[in-house]
Amino acid sequence: MQTTVFPQPPADKTLLEQGSVFSPRFDTNGLITVVVTDAGDDMVLMVAHMNAEALALTMETGIAHYWSRSRASLWKKGETSGNLQHVAEIRTDCDQDALWLKVKVAGHDATCHTGKRSCFYRTVESGVDGIGLKNDGSEALFDSSTVYPAKR
Amino acid sequence: MQTTVFPQPPADKTLLEQGSVFSPRFDTNGLITVVVTDAGDDMVLMVAHMNAEALALTMETGIAHYWSRSRASLWKKGETSGNLQHVAEIRTDCDQDALWLKVKVAGHDATCHTGKRSCFYRTVESGVDGIGLKNDGSEALFDSSTVYPAKR
Repeated sequence: MQTTVFPQPPADKTLLEQGSVFSPRFDTNGLITVVVTDAGDDMVLMVAHMNAEALALTMETGIAHYWSRSRASLWKKGETSGNLQHVAEIRTDCDQDALWLKVKVAGHDATCHTGKRSCFYRTVESGVDGIGLKNDGSEALFDSSTVYPAKR
Repeated sequence: MQTTVFPQPPADKTLLEQGSVFSPRFDTNGLITVVVTDAGDDMVLMVAHMNAEALALTMETGIAHYWSRSRASLWKKGETSGNLQHVAEIRTDCDQDALWLKVKVAGHDATCHTGKRSCFYRTVESGVDGIGLKNDGSEALFDSSTVYPAKR
């Protein structure tokens, strides 16, 4: 169903970095890294990957699609939970090997499969006992055992 | 010089996702993806990668270190430009295969080698003429041709 075709990145670094042609640099696995933030307050919600088909579908539908590396399949984020991501803006970085999506999350306003708003719910803390993770106190916005029963 | 050793990720997904042990999941190249935002306003500044040594140095010094894939070397960000990144907070995501660093940037308060504050200075726009990139109007905060003369 993909109709959008992305051009090959130019060999000229100045064109790549300063030009107006969008030529995403997919890696050797055909993937590009995507940072996803909330369009409202810029909270980092997740880091994911897209292949060309996922990126094209995202641009054509306005709903974020990714490539699930663990399932090796196209992934319409929120299809099961209802937490679809409506894309407000897409940016790319200087050398076009990363994307930044600003999204509005539907449903429970939760992005993480654990039910939390963001996947980044733990801080890395150094203390006298070494390095540990500390939960930031964010609560699950849906019951993951109900939404994803097959995962239990 | 690396003294910090990170434990192997647990096979138990619940421990990995809900536990308090920091066990970053480096990929087959020994790298983990890092999202870097400004600690003040959460602007996404860059996406980079760390190996275990870079992560250890970052935690031990409070200054962000990365692994440069293009140069295949350890990279103390800002060492040339003066735009060192002082780490305010480190987070990891649910399955610990990505990090989020909140930083305060020294020097020119610029992260991109082009001199701009963020590497994400272009939006992806769909129009009647197809897809293109639009500069967001951010200006260079330093002269990259002076700071990086070898790159010219």
